[in-house]
Amino acid sequence: MNDKLEELKTRLGEIADLTNAAAILSWDQQTYMPPGATEARAAQLTTLRKLAHERLVADEVGRLLDELASDTADLDRDSYEASLVRVTRRVRDRQVKLPTDLVARMSRAQALGRHAWEKARAASDFSIFLPHLEELVDLARETAEALGYEERMYDALLDRFEPEMKTSQVEALFAELKAGLVPLVQAIAERQDAVDDSFLTGEFDVDRQWELGLEIVKKLGYDLNHGRQDRTAHPFTISFTPADVRITTRLYPDQLKPALFATIHEAGHALYEQGIGRALDRTPLSDSASLAVHESQSRMWE
Amino acid sequence: MNDKLEELKTRLGEIADLTNAAAILSWDQQTYMPPGATEARAAQLTTLRKLAHERLVADEVGRLLDELASDTADLDRDSYEASLVRVTRRVRDRQVKLPTDLVARMSRAQALGRHAWEKARAASDFSIFLPHLEELVDLARETAEALGYEERMYDALLDRFEPEMKTSQVEALFAELKAGLVPLVQAIAERQDAVDDSFLTGEFDVDRQWELGLEIVKKLGYDLNHGRQDRTAHPFTISFTPADVRITTRLYPDQLKPALFATIHEAGHALYEQGIGRALDRTPLSDSASLAVHESQSRMWE
Repeated sequence: MNDKLEELKTRLGEIADLTNAAAILSWDQQTYMPPGATEARAAQLTTLRKLAHERLVADEVGRLLDELASDTADLDRDSYEASLVRVTRRVRDRQVKLPTDLVARMSRAQALGRHAWEKARAASDFSIFLPHLEELVDLARETAEALGYEERMYDALLDRFEPEMKTSQVEALFAELKAGLVPLVQAIAERQDAVDDSFLTGEFDVDRQWELGLEIVKKLGYDLNHGRQDRTAHPFTISFTPADVRITTRLYPDQLKPALFATIHEAGHALYEQGIGRALDRTPLSDSASLAVHESQSRMWE
Repeated sequence: MNDKLEELKTRLGEIADLTNAAAILSWDQQTYMPPGATEARAAQLTTLRKLAHERLVADEVGRLLDELASDTADLDRDSYEASLVRVTRRVRDRQVKLPTDLVARMSRAQALGRHAWEKARAASDFSIFLPHLEELVDLARETAEALGYEERMYDALLDRFEPEMKTSQVEALFAELKAGLVPLVQAIAERQDAVDDSFLTGEFDVDRQWELGLEIVKKLGYDLNHGRQDRTAHPFTISFTPADVRITTRLYPDQLKPALFATIHEAGHALYEQGIGRALDRTPLSDSASLAVHESQSRMWE
């Protein structure tokens, strides 16, 4: 079993390197890349994601997983070996259903769409982004059809964020939350002036806002030896293995809350990613459990 | 011929994307990457360079080049088609001699060595870098042996910077330059105080130094829609296609010259890269002609 496991890990390691490299290129696109590089970047991202996909769906990986599935059948379900085979299989089964060409077209549309979204946002002109959004929705539908679904089309896409969850379950959950939240929000809205929050608006030096945010997230445990903060149009967190988990924020000279809470929120995501065991590096086990788990960590700190 | 040429261009395009992605990761390592990410980055760079190498030396590329060489035999030597085949062949012939494993070991040693060099530099402690330097020299010797040479071992490595130039030619050239330069430098040294350059030292706000440098290189023609400047330990220029050519500089609060001339020097390199025809994008024809040509451009502006 050990030889096969090592071969699987070598292959998964290279796939993870390609995926992490794509994430670094995406981070750069959203932080420092000059605007004129959009087309070139779309080509680079497409190639990396295409190669990662091709290598994951390769027959040899399928054979290795089949053989290792029987080799690990008697092991504890939560053992490293059994988990690696089970989770990799789940991820791969999904990718096998997607033609590489669709993965490439989606990757390209996302890279070009992001640039258009930034332009549209800066110009407050939705029409710049609209054709890109239409293409992205078409590609998402094509992806859902390729993946297949029983009940609702969105189930196929939701599965990527919340493994095995159904749209109908989310709707039931949201209905329950809504019943409690709507009266609560109304009650709060009626007392909007009960607390004086005027100190949150005014003039706030952006460099000092930056320092304040970093000071706080360092105290929360965010490790700057394995992370950093940069500016962006819409804050996000991105991981290139737990050794390098970066956060972003945006600053407004007249408001304290947006930058501060964006920094804390993103640091919550980052704490989760930085906390993933390093023994899982460069395997699908290093991915987060689900988007809800991820968001719970960011919201909790925020 | 057209089908074969298109297939070659598709393959070369993906190889260029991998190489450019590696360059972006290297830029990030030298500018923004948190120090704790060094090991992960070495793995990512190694995978990208390994895959680029494997894909270039693939038999199919060799066959395509052989067939296209006869298809383009009657074309003008400087035509796009004939040049693409000739230059790609030259680049590939060299890479074919290198085992992928050696390419991977070199890539890893470079990524780890760079980190050690930065640490050594900050601590003024050469011993931190020494073992890495020894490994890099060993790998360079192994590379030279794999490439082969007739006269001198360094010929094999020099060829990468100055195609087909021999170490003995460089020595003859340097001897001639030395005969003229040594007396010139001595004559200048004797009159060191002839010009008052005291205005170059003093207190210079680093933000204003930054602005001054950028202002000047913009006037020289450096296009910030396809480039940007960042800080680093030792200034360099790096290209990810002519659409994205970045420069770096370092700032000293008590000296004007280092940042200003580094910025101008690197912008000279960048002007050369930004000027390469976009029709050559994602092919080996988009690479610079030689290091001497490159350096002539940076020195001229400086």
